[in-house]
Amino acid sequence: MMKINAKQLTSLDEQTAADVAELFRALGDTSRVRILTALIDCEINVRGLAEIVGISESAVSHQLRTLRLMRLVRSRKQGREVFYCLDDDHVTSLVLQGLDHVVHG
Amino acid sequence: MMKINAKQLTSLDEQTAADVAELFRALGDTSRVRILTALIDCEINVRGLAEIVGISESAVSHQLRTLRLMRLVRSRKQGREVFYCLDDDHVTSLVLQGLDHVVHG
Repeated sequence: MMKINAKQLTSLDEQTAADVAELFRALGDTSRVRILTALIDCEINVRGLAEIVGISESAVSHQLRTLRLMRLVRSRKQGREVFYCLDDDHVTSLVLQGLDHVVHG
Repeated sequence: MMKINAKQLTSLDEQTAADVAELFRALGDTSRVRILTALIDCEINVRGLAEIVGISESAVSHQLRTLRLMRLVRSRKQGREVFYCLDDDHVTSLVLQGLDHVVHG
């Protein structure tokens, strides 16, 4: 049944919708999906990510900048090394939900 | 700490990663985000969605085709009317997680 009400009509303003769309676009790239999936369980540095994803370290760094900007990953410095992990449990479940939808329908 | 293991290196093949990225790209559009959000609680027809999102009915139909292709929405015929809803609870939580990340960080 169609049940439109005023709350719904105004529930998602244009700017919020645009921000959500931008977030999903940040997730909509094969290399970035592989980086995020690799980071689900652990902290990894750029060299490790390049090895896992099979792209250059500079390409990994480029993708990490986008992912940090969207608060999807965060970094931690340890001596001269920088390690990356998913920003929080939200991000983990976002990635896992996407994976689940594709794998299990 | 960097903990790379063989399982991880092979855990997400290129095709699966590409499929997940494609799914997120389908979510990465302002109108589609607004359509999906409107469908969280109820079934709505094309006319209702056009009213809520503020785009033409033909634009809504175009976006619904993309969303159906990605199994994000499904339809139900009732007489001459076709009503749309989110495909399943996965999709609902995917949309809500994205919204949550943007609104609450």
